[in-house]
Amino acid sequence: MEIVNVKSEERIDDLERNGLKIIQNPKKFCFGMDAVLLSYFAAESIGNTAKNIVDLGTGNGILPLLLSAKTSASNIIGIEIQEEMADMASRSVSMNDLSDRVHIFCQDLKESAEILGHSSFECVVSNPPYMTGGHGLQNPDSAKAIARHEIKCIFDDVCKTASALLVPKGHCFFVHRPFRLVDIFSSMRKYSLEPKRMRLVYPTIDSEPNMVLVEGIRGAGVELKNEKPLIVYEAEGVYTREIKEIYSF
Amino acid sequence: MEIVNVKSEERIDDLERNGLKIIQNPKKFCFGMDAVLLSYFAAESIGNTAKNIVDLGTGNGILPLLLSAKTSASNIIGIEIQEEMADMASRSVSMNDLSDRVHIFCQDLKESAEILGHSSFECVVSNPPYMTGGHGLQNPDSAKAIARHEIKCIFDDVCKTASALLVPKGHCFFVHRPFRLVDIFSSMRKYSLEPKRMRLVYPTIDSEPNMVLVEGIRGAGVELKNEKPLIVYEAEGVYTREIKEIYSF
Repeated sequence: MEIVNVKSEERIDDLERNGLKIIQNPKKFCFGMDAVLLSYFAAESIGNTAKNIVDLGTGNGILPLLLSAKTSASNIIGIEIQEEMADMASRSVSMNDLSDRVHIFCQDLKESAEILGHSSFECVVSNPPYMTGGHGLQNPDSAKAIARHEIKCIFDDVCKTASALLVPKGHCFFVHRPFRLVDIFSSMRKYSLEPKRMRLVYPTIDSEPNMVLVEGIRGAGVELKNEKPLIVYEAEGVYTREIKEIYSF
Repeated sequence: MEIVNVKSEERIDDLERNGLKIIQNPKKFCFGMDAVLLSYFAAESIGNTAKNIVDLGTGNGILPLLLSAKTSASNIIGIEIQEEMADMASRSVSMNDLSDRVHIFCQDLKESAEILGHSSFECVVSNPPYMTGGHGLQNPDSAKAIARHEIKCIFDDVCKTASALLVPKGHCFFVHRPFRLVDIFSSMRKYSLEPKRMRLVYPTIDSEPNMVLVEGIRGAGVELKNEKPLIVYEAEGVYTREIKEIYSF
């Protein structure tokens, strides 16, 4: 494990998986269950097939790190527009001795296809900002605001870029909020990323879903597979068996 | 209760609700759980407010009959393209002494807005054919094929007509199959019927959903409310409490 610089306010968390660790800064960005579920959802589908994966808006690099463990991809790229976040992600890559497989680039994802090359990835993943706009935010330039709100890019940009980066029949995977589902499908279809599989995540069996996982395939035919509900808690504070399995997957 | 003619192969079923009965023909069309769930889903939202309701593709009139009991609407119209079905529905209306509130018209729903008038309904419901096309069907002219397959109309036609019939901010309610969800959202948005509420119906907590209920509002803003899962069976052959409640609603 390479020794890297850890800055003030940062901490190192154990991913409890292949000995992986990640640098986080609670004031800037910490990963959540959405990243864990998305890495599982993607790996289920392309775990052994995709050689080239790109993560659009990688934050502190959680998705590339998890995908390095869950897939056999040899080239995993994380794109992040915020310098501070990209630097944190790069240091985590070094710390985990993953510099041969995982590469972090600080760039605007809207320019990624020009820089990385059209039709050059079998898989795109993204955990994009969920909330529309940044109006009324006290601090729209903060790292947290940029990660959560569509300030630097909107979901339509993510789909446009994903479509450009993917090979024909390449797969994209998104995690998002269910209240945006119509926008999600609309943008995906607009850029020929036909939604083929989705799964709603419900905190409990008796609650509204708070996340949705969607898989699209570039240029695929029309037909959506809806999966069984993914329930997070079976009782207060007690994860369901499936969530426990996903966390140890 | 008016005495009506019941033809050979037909039977009269009790709806176990307000003493309502319905004429069915197992060889042509019998209603299913989808109609019961759709009437509940619609009534939850517009039960006391909509005065004028139209059902596009009413079959044997199950939705107008159920909505007559579950809403305070004074004018409920069922449109059915198949003469035989429309006749069956009309006789059920007479049998239930509902001729003052429920009216069945045999017409092509694609012409309904011209005949019934644009912007004249607060609510449109439809349980449309679920399957795309009718290719390869042994008997594409059969009543069952027309009810199940997009032979006489496609979902896009239903949305176009619904949008024309609805007043601004009028509500539409559809039941459909989850594998068509992208098409559903796409057609609804195309005709300004913004999807505002949806609920997936899962046979069991551990199965894929087999129905989806969607509410749209003509000209509404973007934001979809996803409701908690509707689970049908809690054990083999045993309905959940919620399904029992819906059946007695």
